[in-house]
Amino acid sequence: MARWAPDSRGRLQTAALELFSEHGYEPVTATAIAERAGVTERTFYRQFGDKREILFGDGTRILDVITTAVDAVPVEPLAGAVGAALHALALDMQPRYDRLAVRAAIIAATPELQERELRKMASWATALASYLTGRGTDPATAEVCTAAAMAVFRIAFQRWLAAGPDSSLADLVAESLSSLAALLPDPGRR
Amino acid sequence: MARWAPDSRGRLQTAALELFSEHGYEPVTATAIAERAGVTERTFYRQFGDKREILFGDGTRILDVITTAVDAVPVEPLAGAVGAALHALALDMQPRYDRLAVRAAIIAATPELQERELRKMASWATALASYLTGRGTDPATAEVCTAAAMAVFRIAFQRWLAAGPDSSLADLVAESLSSLAALLPDPGRR
Repeated sequence: MARWAPDSRGRLQTAALELFSEHGYEPVTATAIAERAGVTERTFYRQFGDKREILFGDGTRILDVITTAVDAVPVEPLAGAVGAALHALALDMQPRYDRLAVRAAIIAATPELQERELRKMASWATALASYLTGRGTDPATAEVCTAAAMAVFRIAFQRWLAAGPDSSLADLVAESLSSLAALLPDPGRR
Repeated sequence: MARWAPDSRGRLQTAALELFSEHGYEPVTATAIAERAGVTERTFYRQFGDKREILFGDGTRILDVITTAVDAVPVEPLAGAVGAALHALALDMQPRYDRLAVRAAIIAATPELQERELRKMASWATALASYLTGRGTDPATAEVCTAAAMAVFRIAFQRWLAAGPDSSLADLVAESLSSLAALLPDPGRR
């Protein structure tokens, strides 16, 4: 087993997705993942705190994608800023369809992982709201709008997985956001 | 210990909330909860599958509250039907402020429980969407709107807990729903 492992992180993620797909999530051990990736268990634990974090370890990078996108646009109107964040997230995910589809299938089969996924997305919403508030948006509005937007993103994401890699996640996100209009008590909008 | 325990379910819930508040969630056992409630462990397990279900066992009743409310109104406009569901949920929770505040504090202290709570609310959104779709609402719109509405409800609920028992959850829900307008890309609405 090589002591020096280039891109050990990516290789561990690939190995884990393969093993989870073959055997399910529960029975696969950190040891087996490290072995398949050709790295030591120590490298596994240095890269990921535990097995679950292999599936959820991209959170920090995703937050970067979101804040970079919001930095590039005015925070008002809020629809534009939140839309830019979700659009950037969609573009980031689009080329990773295959890996994300495998990951989603593993998560869908394990309630504990579904719960972790929901909390991760809620934390993105909270982070985006704090960021917008830091730039002057009304905190109450930012909190509601980012939470709703993330719930909408999650649905668009599931539709994208169902529709296949040639469908556009960004388009599905935009469509889903616009269907929120039906939720507003203004007859003129429907 | 009495073999016949009137309202053993309610007594178990009260005992569990007391014990969780005193010692935290993790260290409290089903045995300790049953003992505090004055019922047998067998009664505990008949009422709740496990310790976690003590905090989440009201789901079926909540779904009844939601569907009964939606039954009483037209499904279109969707804003009215979803609004009626959340309003009924708010009225159902209003008199239970004290118990819900204790429960929320316990959940906030334990990531595993936060995750379970998010999944429970997502399941209410899905159930409401299926119900509306069964009555003729466009499925895609219903899915997006109920998921967003439940995310909004969750925020209003947290605001209500922070504001105290004299604040109106129903008012906070209505306010939060209306601030979703900022998310729609229509300059005329802001």
